[in-house]
Amino acid sequence: MVKSAHNLINANFKNAKLLIVEDDDDQWLIIQQAMRQCMSELTAQRVATLEQAMTLLEDWRYQEWEIPKLILLDLYLPTNATGWQLLKQIRAMPSPIGTLPIVMLTSSVDPIDIKDAYQLGVSAYVVKPIEFADWLTCFRELRTYWLETVTLPPIQYEL
Amino acid sequence: MVKSAHNLINANFKNAKLLIVEDDDDQWLIIQQAMRQCMSELTAQRVATLEQAMTLLEDWRYQEWEIPKLILLDLYLPTNATGWQLLKQIRAMPSPIGTLPIVMLTSSVDPIDIKDAYQLGVSAYVVKPIEFADWLTCFRELRTYWLETVTLPPIQYEL
Repeated sequence: MVKSAHNLINANFKNAKLLIVEDDDDQWLIIQQAMRQCMSELTAQRVATLEQAMTLLEDWRYQEWEIPKLILLDLYLPTNATGWQLLKQIRAMPSPIGTLPIVMLTSSVDPIDIKDAYQLGVSAYVVKPIEFADWLTCFRELRTYWLETVTLPPIQYEL
Repeated sequence: MVKSAHNLINANFKNAKLLIVEDDDDQWLIIQQAMRQCMSELTAQRVATLEQAMTLLEDWRYQEWEIPKLILLDLYLPTNATGWQLLKQIRAMPSPIGTLPIVMLTSSVDPIDIKDAYQLGVSAYVVKPIEFADWLTCFRELRTYWLETVTLPPIQYEL
């Protein structure tokens, strides 16, 4: 933890929420378990479809206390066409929603998917682990990076 | 380290280079020391101006073995106008250069700078630490995240 940014880091954990777009119930169970062990201060809001994600994000536009710190976005929902459409729709929204960090969390290792994800503005592309121990490592690292190292975008509307 | 992505991770460290845009010689000394201790497998290429950065990136467009894994971009070079201009110019370049992860590494904690950086497509915004121990923590975390957790964009041109 970077001492000089202590105040910002404390702010990161205040009412901290992650938005998780995941259509697979089994994967969602794993994510919940990993979050319980590695991100116990954070709540998780899960949606399974593009429509659910957009409804929630549209609602949150005027409820800044609801805005998540980070979006974890599955790509195949169940096809990547839906993942790309959702990514484009989020990035087209005005700040603060449109500039939220989005981590693509997917099983795909297809170089075209990886390239397209960065081209369309993901903050990072993370391949889903297989073993549960690796899920824990992955979520621990997401926490350390996004909540203890990075300065997240401000969510005030007046900016 | 995520086992299922071992091959990708090993690839990350092969000929791995960071491009560091930093106009302040003292800060560059600190960065070099932190990299020596936390990223000893990586080489660092430093540039101090927008012009130097663009010359190098234009050269590297057709030398894919030269392309860095990550760009660390200071914002005030010495004013933020130059930092914004460079960020826009990099993001306007075709892939693979234009889609490289860019971490803004700056002393500024101005919320407008933070918001604008995300709006213009940085992968993350990191406030420069004060104490050297915190620089080490910061670089250790950048390494763990970008080189051991994330799948970086592919650098082949045919994609």
